[in-house]
Amino acid sequence: MKRPSEFDLIAKYFAPLAAGMPGAFGLSDDAAILSPAPGREIVTTVDALTEGVHFLPDDPPGDIARKMLRCNLSDLAAMGARPIGYLMTTALTDRIDEAWIAAFTAGLAADQREFGLGLLGGDTISTPGLLSFTVTAFGNVPIGKALRRNGARAGDLVMVSGTIGDGALGLLASRGELNALNEPDRKALLARYRLPQPRLTLGAALLDRRLSVAALDVSDGLVADLGHMADRSKLSATVDAARVPLSDAARHAIETDPRLLAVALTGGDDYELLFTIAPERRDSVQGLARELGLTISEIGTMAAGQGVRVLDASGQALALDRAGWTHF
Amino acid sequence: MKRPSEFDLIAKYFAPLAAGMPGAFGLSDDAAILSPAPGREIVTTVDALTEGVHFLPDDPPGDIARKMLRCNLSDLAAMGARPIGYLMTTALTDRIDEAWIAAFTAGLAADQREFGLGLLGGDTISTPGLLSFTVTAFGNVPIGKALRRNGARAGDLVMVSGTIGDGALGLLASRGELNALNEPDRKALLARYRLPQPRLTLGAALLDRRLSVAALDVSDGLVADLGHMADRSKLSATVDAARVPLSDAARHAIETDPRLLAVALTGGDDYELLFTIAPERRDSVQGLARELGLTISEIGTMAAGQGVRVLDASGQALALDRAGWTHF
Repeated sequence: MKRPSEFDLIAKYFAPLAAGMPGAFGLSDDAAILSPAPGREIVTTVDALTEGVHFLPDDPPGDIARKMLRCNLSDLAAMGARPIGYLMTTALTDRIDEAWIAAFTAGLAADQREFGLGLLGGDTISTPGLLSFTVTAFGNVPIGKALRRNGARAGDLVMVSGTIGDGALGLLASRGELNALNEPDRKALLARYRLPQPRLTLGAALLDRRLSVAALDVSDGLVADLGHMADRSKLSATVDAARVPLSDAARHAIETDPRLLAVALTGGDDYELLFTIAPERRDSVQGLARELGLTISEIGTMAAGQGVRVLDASGQALALDRAGWTHF
Repeated sequence: MKRPSEFDLIAKYFAPLAAGMPGAFGLSDDAAILSPAPGREIVTTVDALTEGVHFLPDDPPGDIARKMLRCNLSDLAAMGARPIGYLMTTALTDRIDEAWIAAFTAGLAADQREFGLGLLGGDTISTPGLLSFTVTAFGNVPIGKALRRNGARAGDLVMVSGTIGDGALGLLASRGELNALNEPDRKALLARYRLPQPRLTLGAALLDRRLSVAALDVSDGLVADLGHMADRSKLSATVDAARVPLSDAARHAIETDPRLLAVALTGGDDYELLFTIAPERRDSVQGLARELGLTISEIGTMAAGQGVRVLDASGQALALDRAGWTHF
């Protein structure tokens, strides 16, 4: 399909995303500059996405753009970082016309405003393969203070923001697999799947107020990600399934099919923050939750040992048939 | 094709590339940390590569890896930056087996040692599309001192490192289009095309010794890239074609077909540094050239006006049928 040249696309659609970004140089130089404020250092992470795997060819371009950016920002949130900007690569297929690019970059512009960051640079190529993107996001944290996966201590409480399972159930809904569920609930799950909410304010506040030193974002699935934290912290984790926060829509879905509880607990794509706190921080964390208007739930504890156990209401370990999923 | 899981590949092949890298956290956290030394700031750039466009499916995996890293390091060299590390995404196809990954990461390891950098993080996905990679490279420069494209002044001399045209002629050789040329020359051009040499030491020395403030690396082609510099500096540039440095192999190729001079001047993929200096720095730059064992050639001048003129031996402007090429 005919579209403007690489240089024209950059000038018309990408350069405006870099307007006002110090160090982006209007996308006209070989590289960008990042200069952290005194006492702070740079946090960086990269994600790759390709059509048919991470999004569908006919998904709205603005939604693809925003989800891509948000998943990446969620990794910054997990470290307690404040966002700065991002580099982006776009591998465009013949099918992509100028209107598609316009809608895609409009989605980026909307989320740049919402989360306070800008484009720093990138690379645009034509591919005979599949439509693909990468985003390299940058944030900053006080030097040496980033939240890490390995900082949990025995006796810590396991906390999680928001609700769990909506992303994975939303994916099922998008495939037409939740037809027993009512329309509003299906739509609610789909919306959460399509547009996750990176918990940047929460992550930065946990760091700044020294409420937690151990966090990650739930992308592989609650059980798998808690396993990563336990493993890196050389501890075990126990979760009460009944305390895992569910949205009304997720609860209704599980009422239609109890096997969907396992999907919620292991399915991933939640982009909520999972973190641990010392028990004496419980009240401070709930105070923060009220300030942010965000539910924060206590779902379990860390202890000596290894592995993750998920207990049902009677205290029996649930047999979960998968410990998280992966696109790989 | 059967290969180990994403987690196993990371543990076996990618994590060793991150060994000893501060801030990489053994690839086990959500993001990496970059902490520039006092007085320095971060330079970052990203490139995307896909099979059939930037490399061929049957190219040796180690060569693909090294060229990818080197092209990216060349952008750091253009800013005068010292390399730190890189993030990498890999989109792997079914065809890629463990032996391929082993050879690919061995190539990365070799160039990490050669250029003094390490892996900071990344993302590995499976794609039903084409084998693709991105590298986001990081370096550092003294705050506010990065070499820029816009720093040339009227009266500056235009300088270029190494030899020009080998990359573009090597690409023709790889396509079997230089059969009139002898075998050793064809091999020499091919080698330069397959494995460019990022001029990191030169770039950092130009910055540290304050010999230049305006530089870029020749990737689009000498004429197009000089045009970028002239444009960003709001100046014109004039080049004497006879002074553009050619390798013996390139000169022999042009003897077989004089039209190949235009390929050399506009073809790109040279990854040499193009930079401008005040005339009184000429001797210092040649002293640096001797120190580095690297040819640095004076090929033209910057002046008021706009655009790039390439003059032949009689002072007539050459008509070049393209001002650089692009993969786009």
